[in-house]
Amino acid sequence: MTSNWVECDIGSLKSGVTQRVKLFIYHTPELTPVDKVPECAIAVDVLRATSTMATVLAAGGEAVQVFSDLEQLIQVSQSWPAEKRLLAGERGGAKVPGFDLGNSPLDCTPDRVEGRRLFISTTNGTRTLQRVQNAQTVIAAAFINRGAVVKYLLEMQPQTVWIIGSGWEGSFSLEDTACAGAIAHAVVEQTGLPTDEIAGNDEVINAIALYCQWQDNLLGLFHHASHGKRLLRLQCYEDLKYCSQADTLDVLPVQKEPGVLKRY
Amino acid sequence: MTSNWVECDIGSLKSGVTQRVKLFIYHTPELTPVDKVPECAIAVDVLRATSTMATVLAAGGEAVQVFSDLEQLIQVSQSWPAEKRLLAGERGGAKVPGFDLGNSPLDCTPDRVEGRRLFISTTNGTRTLQRVQNAQTVIAAAFINRGAVVKYLLEMQPQTVWIIGSGWEGSFSLEDTACAGAIAHAVVEQTGLPTDEIAGNDEVINAIALYCQWQDNLLGLFHHASHGKRLLRLQCYEDLKYCSQADTLDVLPVQKEPGVLKRY
Repeated sequence: MTSNWVECDIGSLKSGVTQRVKLFIYHTPELTPVDKVPECAIAVDVLRATSTMATVLAAGGEAVQVFSDLEQLIQVSQSWPAEKRLLAGERGGAKVPGFDLGNSPLDCTPDRVEGRRLFISTTNGTRTLQRVQNAQTVIAAAFINRGAVVKYLLEMQPQTVWIIGSGWEGSFSLEDTACAGAIAHAVVEQTGLPTDEIAGNDEVINAIALYCQWQDNLLGLFHHASHGKRLLRLQCYEDLKYCSQADTLDVLPVQKEPGVLKRY
Repeated sequence: MTSNWVECDIGSLKSGVTQRVKLFIYHTPELTPVDKVPECAIAVDVLRATSTMATVLAAGGEAVQVFSDLEQLIQVSQSWPAEKRLLAGERGGAKVPGFDLGNSPLDCTPDRVEGRRLFISTTNGTRTLQRVQNAQTVIAAAFINRGAVVKYLLEMQPQTVWIIGSGWEGSFSLEDTACAGAIAHAVVEQTGLPTDEIAGNDEVINAIALYCQWQDNLLGLFHHASHGKRLLRLQCYEDLKYCSQADTLDVLPVQKEPGVLKRY
């Protein structure tokens, strides 16, 4: 009736990886340990902050700068030339009044974002990035740039990697855990290492199972997700569809200074 | 390569259920809402507190009384006739010195437990039961008595049900979430209601996927779980094997007074 683990795992050692990547998944920023930072932190907010960030940088945006506070965002952005900045703000799924953009990746077309810096604040995703901004490397990941993230991990081989879902106001979210599972699954598949060597905590095994169960129907999964339903009520069906595509953008948003992400 | 949702779901309405059960899964007691209680709370600590509780009551134990505090356990149990009591205590997976039992369901044979009350304190499971002890109905669930729990839900039709994993010292645990998923999956299957009508939060969809992915190899899942590994290091392989069996005991431990569970 259903597949078992073996079908979703790869038994043989495929690569010559010697230094082993250990992945830890946390469902929300609140669940991350507070007394340490990892070598590499991967923030995930599939619907839609990190999908938007990847899209902006792929479309030629100069950088993405994240803020939890809207006032601070406005203040910092004003020191930037008007023609070089874009203000993006989302609260509760909807665009902040007076801002150039909300949080829809579909609005981030090359003609709007090329050469510009996106100053952005969202309900959950920016908080995740801020929580881990002291890690040695900070990356923004979504389904659309999953392949680029995995490629980086396999090339750079950081020893300790946290993948952190943003959730919704402190709660678990399906789409972020599924994306974390997609990253972990690809690492297992491409290194050929046993899952138990890659997985640093139980959440990794869970997330891989979630991804494996839904990988052929990510859009269907988003329809079951509470935040997916919220966005559908806000008429964001095209956003869901766009964000459910895996590996479509070869772009890696990496933090260059606290809160500022640029294309790697 | 892997199954998708449809194979694990049942599309047609099978029962005449009119009052609809809404399930919410919480990964740990710490993640449950603090401002309310559900109509029915189901505490899950597969490895091993709730498996032990079901086993004791199936073997003819008079009741199970749970304590977070060991001193309090000793004090209360002393008011009970010596031949009618059993002290069970576990910390860090190991038996508390001086107690009759640790937390192994295999020790709970009819000749030891019949007619006796089990006074028990464990690292995680008893805390979960105490967190929800004010709910209208409180049940202890594990894989071994999953069927009895589901039968109760379908017969009594409580409107709001929380299934709460115990985890390990505040962290997510694979085996408890998989068991929560096994309960939710059976409710979906046996009512024939759409998953979205049954699922009150994202955790439910996640837990069903985890269970579906591993249902034919629960013992294998336990081997991937951090607490399963801890118990294997403590030579508890037979406990893992016993707790990985689904629907073997037709017993429902239900709270009769705060902290005291008896056979329904």
